[in-house]
Amino acid sequence: MKLSELMRRHDLKAVTPPDGDPEIRSVRPLEAAGEGDLSFLNNRKYRQQAVETKATAVLTAEPIPDCEAVQLLCREPYAVLARILADLHPEPAYPASVHPSAVVDPSARIHPECHIGPHCVVEAGAVIGAGTVLVNGVTVGRDCRIGAACRLFPHTVLYHGVTLGDRVRIHANSVIGSDGFGYAQTGGIHLKVPQVAGVRIEDDVEIGSNVSIDRGALSDTVIGKGSKIDNLVQVAHGVKIGEHCLVISQSGISGSATLGRYTVLAGQVGVVGHVHVGDQVVVMGDSVVTKDLPGPGQYAGNPAVPHMQYQRQKARERNLAKLEKRLKSLESAVNTKGETSC
Amino acid sequence: MKLSELMRRHDLKAVTPPDGDPEIRSVRPLEAAGEGDLSFLNNRKYRQQAVETKATAVLTAEPIPDCEAVQLLCREPYAVLARILADLHPEPAYPASVHPSAVVDPSARIHPECHIGPHCVVEAGAVIGAGTVLVNGVTVGRDCRIGAACRLFPHTVLYHGVTLGDRVRIHANSVIGSDGFGYAQTGGIHLKVPQVAGVRIEDDVEIGSNVSIDRGALSDTVIGKGSKIDNLVQVAHGVKIGEHCLVISQSGISGSATLGRYTVLAGQVGVVGHVHVGDQVVVMGDSVVTKDLPGPGQYAGNPAVPHMQYQRQKARERNLAKLEKRLKSLESAVNTKGETSC
Amino acid sequence: MKLSELMRRHDLKAVTPPDGDPEIRSVRPLEAAGEGDLSFLNNRKYRQQAVETKATAVLTAEPIPDCEAVQLLCREPYAVLARILADLHPEPAYPASVHPSAVVDPSARIHPECHIGPHCVVEAGAVIGAGTVLVNGVTVGRDCRIGAACRLFPHTVLYHGVTLGDRVRIHANSVIGSDGFGYAQTGGIHLKVPQVAGVRIEDDVEIGSNVSIDRGALSDTVIGKGSKIDNLVQVAHGVKIGEHCLVISQSGISGSATLGRYTVLAGQVGVVGHVHVGDQVVVMGDSVVTKDLPGPGQYAGNPAVPHMQYQRQKARERNLAKLEKRLKSLESAVNTKGETSC
Repeated sequence: MKLSELMRRHDLKAVTPPDGDPEIRSVRPLEAAGEGDLSFLNNRKYRQQAVETKATAVLTAEPIPDCEAVQLLCREPYAVLARILADLHPEPAYPASVHPSAVVDPSARIHPECHIGPHCVVEAGAVIGAGTVLVNGVTVGRDCRIGAACRLFPHTVLYHGVTLGDRVRIHANSVIGSDGFGYAQTGGIHLKVPQVAGVRIEDDVEIGSNVSIDRGALSDTVIGKGSKIDNLVQVAHGVKIGEHCLVISQSGISGSATLGRYTVLAGQVGVVGHVHVGDQVVVMGDSVVTKDLPGPGQYAGNPAVPHMQYQRQKARERNLAKLEKRLKSLESAVNTKGETSC
Repeated sequence: MKLSELMRRHDLKAVTPPDGDPEIRSVRPLEAAGEGDLSFLNNRKYRQQAVETKATAVLTAEPIPDCEAVQLLCREPYAVLARILADLHPEPAYPASVHPSAVVDPSARIHPECHIGPHCVVEAGAVIGAGTVLVNGVTVGRDCRIGAACRLFPHTVLYHGVTLGDRVRIHANSVIGSDGFGYAQTGGIHLKVPQVAGVRIEDDVEIGSNVSIDRGALSDTVIGKGSKIDNLVQVAHGVKIGEHCLVISQSGISGSATLGRYTVLAGQVGVVGHVHVGDQVVVMGDSVVTKDLPGPGQYAGNPAVPHMQYQRQKARERNLAKLEKRLKSLESAVNTKGETSC
Repeated sequence: MKLSELMRRHDLKAVTPPDGDPEIRSVRPLEAAGEGDLSFLNNRKYRQQAVETKATAVLTAEPIPDCEAVQLLCREPYAVLARILADLHPEPAYPASVHPSAVVDPSARIHPECHIGPHCVVEAGAVIGAGTVLVNGVTVGRDCRIGAACRLFPHTVLYHGVTLGDRVRIHANSVIGSDGFGYAQTGGIHLKVPQVAGVRIEDDVEIGSNVSIDRGALSDTVIGKGSKIDNLVQVAHGVKIGEHCLVISQSGISGSATLGRYTVLAGQVGVVGHVHVGDQVVVMGDSVVTKDLPGPGQYAGNPAVPHMQYQRQKARERNLAKLEKRLKSLESAVNTKGETSC
């Protein structure tokens, strides 16, 4: 694509008018880009790389002095990058078809525009909307309802009674609707508490690989519209995640906890059961949320406290060696004075 | 079901005799329940919800003043709830059959009462007991022995030489018997140590989704009778988990570590290799067990110490700012006195 | 196998010449071994067990006083054990064949010496080298290139454009090449950033079960030659892991982070995005790497600091109670003196 065409389609302006109209052939990171490549600067950490890049053009939110590439100014370089990439790399289409090795219950209602790949299983009463793709080896349990234009990657498993909105993407080997971890201790054993509610996943949710989302015990587990869940995340029974949240890899949310809207759990965070994490809260990586956190705000630590408080506390802890020294010199001073005053 | 029938079947008494004999149609949490619903109070945190609930009846261990629902007294409301739910929602039965798309080695011995669903693979020498269900896409490796009335959800994988007792449930995409992480560093490479023992899972164990349980290097990995393992848990080679333990989501147990009986690992706990966690120990969430912990007792922190000690230590750390102030004012006092005494 | 034969094949010397030439029938841990068993001492923690063992012979790096078994001296007992086990327990061979239930695109080029097991899917343009085994239910996406003598266990999923070297092993239910977690926040939604690069896994890498390795956004995710990855590990988009690294269970490496060579992440470690962990660095369990760590060296804590510094800091924190007492007695002393001096 010609640079001028790219600029026109994505409404970009150059800091300095480009020399001619070079061809843009691919998108590469700053340090790997060369002639014919578009690159982008989204993290100031990489500013020096932007100066040194051999890319033909660079998306940037502000002019980069000494950068010789054509600098394409845009308020949101990362969003523009996303749109350009989607333009250049459309997702592979799958033909509307049901593979002969798929096992589909006759009572399932599958829109004729769906792709049901090899070795899928679709159980009784399931409903699947237009344009949805089950890549291969996908299990859709009894009475699931899947919206339109969803894409379920290999070996995702939906237990019975799971509902997906439209444009939901679930990556390989994730499990939606397995039994919540509910047992009643009685007579020396752990008696299973049947988990009789379902899971509801709203429109435009994307779920990574190897994720576990349990069905509700009595009320549905819910993932709100537009939320994104990374790989290896645990969502326990009855959790309600609001709209447009981000839950980053290896985080775990215990039973009946709730997240607000635009809430972010960074990696390896734990949230204990029955607490509420408010709107626009960001919980820093490796933290543990043990009680309700009002939003908006940043929190960190175990237990998670406001981030500023966490940092002050950490600074005090790092300062302990100096504290000890001050105490020691004070002890000498007091003892010496004691002797002097005798 | 009529309330009177429910009370009779589960041996329940009402705090105040109910007004008539209402129909109980479903079970719902306190805040969502309405007419015709049974609910329950199991966590005092929700007491106010019990007062405000619109449920027709509530299971409770003690009378709730001002609650207008029929209060059904029982020592263990959660266990009674479990039994009522199992009554109302029996697990779906699967017919005894072997799906034509399953690939079963002729030397496998499968009880005629089993359900072997679509796309399962059962390798040579495997034995499967009466009433066991392999839902679909389940792999049963060479020489596995599976007891009666087990249920293996989609895409669980048993490597060769895994033994399951009776009534074992394994949720989707869990893996039992993959190679333990054993390498000998030699000549600049990590030389694989063959993992030649198996995995033994005893009766009434339930295992969540996306769990990894490795086979033993030289001695079997063992999960004791009645233990329950949540989603995304790691059990390394040669681990021995005793009877009736609970291992909560995203915990990891390193090689050759052992748990006693009725031991609980809360979420995201780590246990290092070769240590023993005693009977009736509870390790709090996000802790790391680095040495043997005698039971019974509660432990927390990294390294895990008795919970009281952990809390005192945390309190001292939170108190650091005050400690600094006291030190500072003492420094002024000593300096001032120094001047005064000159 | 006769003991003399074993000693000859693995070039072992006995501390004291054995009494006769006993038959070695199996390999067992010290405490479980009996007559006819070979055992080994690799961890001094088990020295007493070596004294008490009933094994016929024991591999050891140094003589064990009072041990009555034949002591077979070798510099690297664990490496010798690995070789002996590989001798005694060769991996099961799978015949060269393509199972009729596998769905293989006609454009895929599969070496005639491969085993493609039941319910596998091999998409267009894939290339698979000699001797590679796809056990069953394995998905190989469009244009993947798999080398020779690889073994992919049940239900591993390779998305399109994944490259594996030779002798790569991937355990069950692991996912290679799922989309990285990349979204651009714009207009109140998280806009997906297409992930258009691939994954490259070099020779002799072994990957555990339930692992997630995401494809790169713009530059490939890379796992270097000889590295070993344990179960339930997360490797985000664009991560570069060097050669001969060990990444232990439940660790997570965020986007664009890099590991050097011979680097070890112990269990449940987190590495934040865009940092470099140097050659021969060992990060202790449960730590969080928040900035570049030069190697070689041991690091621990959140944020990870040199291990000695971490231990001194922990000691200071444990010492807080004493610090408080010293401060208190100093306060009394100063106050008393104050009174005295009035």
